[in-house]
Amino acid sequence: MPDQISIGLMGLGVVGVSVANAIDAKAEVIKARVGCPVVVSRALVRDIGAVRSNLRNSVELTTDPDIILNDPEIAIIVELMGGEQPTLDYINQAISNGKHVVTANKEVLAKHGPELFKAAADKGVMVRFEASVGGGIPIIGPLMNDLAANDFTAVNAVINGTTNYMLTRMASDSNLDYQMVLKEARDRGYAEADPSADVDGIDAAFKLGILASIAFHCTVRDTEVFREGIRRLSPADFAYASELGYTIKLLATARRTHGRIQARVHPAFLPEDHPLAKVDGVYNAVELEGDLVDSAMFQGPGAGAEPTTSAVLADIMAEAHSIANGERLPVHMSDNNGLVVEPIDDLETKYYLRLRVYDRPGVLAQITTVFGDLEVSLASFIQKEVGELGDVAEVVITTYVAKESAVQEAVRQLEALDSVSEVSNLVRIEEQSASLARGGQPKREGD
Amino acid sequence: MPDQISIGLMGLGVVGVSVANAIDAKAEVIKARVGCPVVVSRALVRDIGAVRSNLRNSVELTTDPDIILNDPEIAIIVELMGGEQPTLDYINQAISNGKHVVTANKEVLAKHGPELFKAAADKGVMVRFEASVGGGIPIIGPLMNDLAANDFTAVNAVINGTTNYMLTRMASDSNLDYQMVLKEARDRGYAEADPSADVDGIDAAFKLGILASIAFHCTVRDTEVFREGIRRLSPADFAYASELGYTIKLLATARRTHGRIQARVHPAFLPEDHPLAKVDGVYNAVELEGDLVDSAMFQGPGAGAEPTTSAVLADIMAEAHSIANGERLPVHMSDNNGLVVEPIDDLETKYYLRLRVYDRPGVLAQITTVFGDLEVSLASFIQKEVGELGDVAEVVITTYVAKESAVQEAVRQLEALDSVSEVSNLVRIEEQSASLARGGQPKREGD
Repeated sequence: MPDQISIGLMGLGVVGVSVANAIDAKAEVIKARVGCPVVVSRALVRDIGAVRSNLRNSVELTTDPDIILNDPEIAIIVELMGGEQPTLDYINQAISNGKHVVTANKEVLAKHGPELFKAAADKGVMVRFEASVGGGIPIIGPLMNDLAANDFTAVNAVINGTTNYMLTRMASDSNLDYQMVLKEARDRGYAEADPSADVDGIDAAFKLGILASIAFHCTVRDTEVFREGIRRLSPADFAYASELGYTIKLLATARRTHGRIQARVHPAFLPEDHPLAKVDGVYNAVELEGDLVDSAMFQGPGAGAEPTTSAVLADIMAEAHSIANGERLPVHMSDNNGLVVEPIDDLETKYYLRLRVYDRPGVLAQITTVFGDLEVSLASFIQKEVGELGDVAEVVITTYVAKESAVQEAVRQLEALDSVSEVSNLVRIEEQSASLARGGQPKREGD
Repeated sequence: MPDQISIGLMGLGVVGVSVANAIDAKAEVIKARVGCPVVVSRALVRDIGAVRSNLRNSVELTTDPDIILNDPEIAIIVELMGGEQPTLDYINQAISNGKHVVTANKEVLAKHGPELFKAAADKGVMVRFEASVGGGIPIIGPLMNDLAANDFTAVNAVINGTTNYMLTRMASDSNLDYQMVLKEARDRGYAEADPSADVDGIDAAFKLGILASIAFHCTVRDTEVFREGIRRLSPADFAYASELGYTIKLLATARRTHGRIQARVHPAFLPEDHPLAKVDGVYNAVELEGDLVDSAMFQGPGAGAEPTTSAVLADIMAEAHSIANGERLPVHMSDNNGLVVEPIDDLETKYYLRLRVYDRPGVLAQITTVFGDLEVSLASFIQKEVGELGDVAEVVITTYVAKESAVQEAVRQLEALDSVSEVSNLVRIEEQSASLARGGQPKREGD
């Protein structure tokens, strides 16, 4: 048993300070659990002179990463800088110096996870990353441990708090459009000055890639995740969704299907009784479907300094416990069972389309012919006069289950029709998730 | 690394067969994870001759527990018999023979957990029990590991599937009374012939005692959990609940408050937007409130052979991994920080009361005087003529936050009034859970 275990903290922003303070404030609990004290000995900062009045810890600050990465006393590097570079280099350096790593960096993991895990396994060090997905919600741990006996078939998630806040607002107030809720999200500190990582689904795609890779024991790169953001959603879409009995969410879903993996992030119409439809505001939720557990859902704050600290500290304690007790429990994400990601063209689901058409005889026949020729069956068809648009009317169509490639071809053909002014939006409709919706399975024993 | 790890299974009912079959079917996955094969070598049964056509495993059956408990080849005893005795004796014997234990037995844990964990720690063996609460929902693991950095303030749960099914049915159909939904639950296999463990809240109290003991690092005995069942709920209560904007659930809640623990199981009025209000049918959900994570909720199937197998198998793999790698990770529940359980009399919450009164002058004044004298403020007062009851009218009262002892005294005084025919029911009203309800907390970094 070592006298103490020292941590090098890379990044001392709001989360970094929160982690350092929590390690200080919870020293007794951590010691009882780990077996010896855990201390933050050094922290990498950009500016040593910056005021950090809320930092309780007497940690030594440096602007030189090598001082931390080469410190033989430091056993665990806790990386909270974010971004791809120079973070990736630092993590690689830490691993090759034999240090264990705790990171909250979804970008580095989504882009370079398999290589990092291989390097860590070769070197016999641990890399833990509970905070990279879902903030404080335990999700990596349950996937890798508590539910490890399951053969997973699906991961369905709302894992971007910023967009979920925006969509919740648009759903609740029909006067709010995309730009207005974006401004609101910025004012509340939920959205960045450049919101693209959130609103274009980039952040959600990183997280989904990580979850899918673990759940399906394969490598789902962020670039393989089909991705569509929320910029095109208008108040009209929310009005029609509500009229049709749906809620709009930025869905992140990965499924094992026909020997391939489906992985996609896009706005989706969810039935109002879908478990993810009820996840509002900046909250996140992840639903896992497995052969044994059927369905388990995890819900909580997907971001914020303290929830992130909850996850980072759990990882630190787990690694410190293993170090203190001479165990080695490398965390793998590099196993690959050869499953490949299915192209979005092969997706089969239901669709919602909103069109503007010139209100002239025969237009509906033209539209329905396009779908009919492509063997896409229509489930509903709503036409509304739009007064202020002159002779333009709004048409809303929902389809039965159809192939994405056929629906995309339909969109192209519709856009080429003289009678169609524009295809304003296309949103995929997700059927009820398999399991929670069944609302009950036979009870055989116990309670 | 041992050649293989052998399991002795005690109990080969539906869950036992499911566990044995899963260990067989998932042999490759388990081996990859543990490091060596895991096999079920022996199983304790009541009747060796019973037909078990669905058992895939070639396990040796015995009716003699000592053959399993004394088998030097067996490293892990998996107890799936249920009940307090003789199970407790078997588990104690297993521990004293140096065997690790996996159990789904909430009754034994709730009644004898601290003694078992002490014996296991003394002997250096592990006792794991993920399946004892919430079936396949990971909840013990997250409490002990993923959320271990948190100082927990509350555990709120719907953890009895049978009663949740019954209450969901009564809420959805005003023609159904308690006896009708009980019959329905029996017909579907959700309720036992003797339903008291479920409908009187005994099962939920066992589970809450286990959760509270872990969350608050203290010993909450099942006998210390205040317990009230669902037998008194009538269609009228559901009608009034709905009218007032509430849903009725059998709530299991434990809180750390004023240096004491509150632990209670009883029907409760939950606001319709309370996260637990949406958990329907036989599903279970547990919400944890901690200083860092704020709130995290876990939801899924609370019973059933396969979900239980998911939890049991996770425990088996964790213990087998530790055995194979020469680690010892005893699981504690015996630490005690001295917190004591608060008597129910000290509870402060809101209340719903339903009374039948003789419709005569002055009766309302008499009732309000009782509450006024006891300093219980009334929030609402509904009086309805009940035609078929002659001169009897139904009165429904809700209070502001009041002390349980004062409200119970009010009930006694009301029952003594000549003008009151009966106090038909009293149900506690739970305010919105602290955190999920806030619907969003400031976002400082990341997403």
